[in-house]
Amino acid sequence: MTTTIPFIASEQLLEHWQGHRNLTRRVIEAFPEKELFEFSIGGMRPFAKLAVELISIGGPAVKGIVEKNEKAYDEEAFTPKTKEEILKKWDEETEVINHYFNQISEERFQESFNLFGQYEFPVYQNILYFIDNEVHHRGQGYAYLRALGIEPPFFWERF
Amino acid sequence: MTTTIPFIASEQLLEHWQGHRNLTRRVIEAFPEKELFEFSIGGMRPFAKLAVELISIGGPAVKGIVEKNEKAYDEEAFTPKTKEEILKKWDEETEVINHYFNQISEERFQESFNLFGQYEFPVYQNILYFIDNEVHHRGQGYAYLRALGIEPPFFWERF
Repeated sequence: MTTTIPFIASEQLLEHWQGHRNLTRRVIEAFPEKELFEFSIGGMRPFAKLAVELISIGGPAVKGIVEKNEKAYDEEAFTPKTKEEILKKWDEETEVINHYFNQISEERFQESFNLFGQYEFPVYQNILYFIDNEVHHRGQGYAYLRALGIEPPFFWERF
Repeated sequence: MTTTIPFIASEQLLEHWQGHRNLTRRVIEAFPEKELFEFSIGGMRPFAKLAVELISIGGPAVKGIVEKNEKAYDEEAFTPKTKEEILKKWDEETEVINHYFNQISEERFQESFNLFGQYEFPVYQNILYFIDNEVHHRGQGYAYLRALGIEPPFFWERF
């Protein structure tokens, strides 16, 4: 990074991510209980499954990066039956992400790490991937809501 | 930014964006000609319209930032009738983005700019918004392709 110029500071990136997570939380809330767990298009997963994926990545990944543990990705550790359970866990993971993200040093962002013992990339790339993956699946979620005749939250409302 | 640590260098962010743009290009290619312009879910725009939106943002926005011009957003300037026209324009804008992005200085990323005479935010936030907006709409595009029974490109393939 010595010959280059920074694009964004780490605490700005964390705020950016948590803004996206707020919006995703609103998308989860916008689904009726039944459709959250059952509705799908073209054989894709219902939005509850996508939310569990996002919950299984964010907090555990940032914790793994800080502790340099390569514990495998585990989507089976959290098997919610209600929207309320998902939202509660979502909020808990918000705190986990804040807690660990702030412990990542400048050097670590550029260092390679084998996330979940499987994804060997520079840490900044892994973190951008979490956000992109969330925006991507949430885009699917918007399509589900529109197909259900439900107005999704504004894309630009983050806080 | 003086008391903070950088998350990502500007040329890494440009590479990240162009990787996303490569993937979006593949999604455009994956649509059959007719469905690209006509297929939709829940009253949303066909993917050709979304591609025109992305084309109307990226290059013009980065040019506007560098030249400090607040020229209004204009989606009517490009009205393609074929997939080939969209892909050709997409590739032209790739060069426009590369050309102008590299002229943005470190200070500018943190400065506020009234993009398109309408979106007054720090430059780094505007640029992240372009990428997020693309990933968001592309997520819709994936849902369209799945609904059409077409396998979308791999999300992680960018180059």
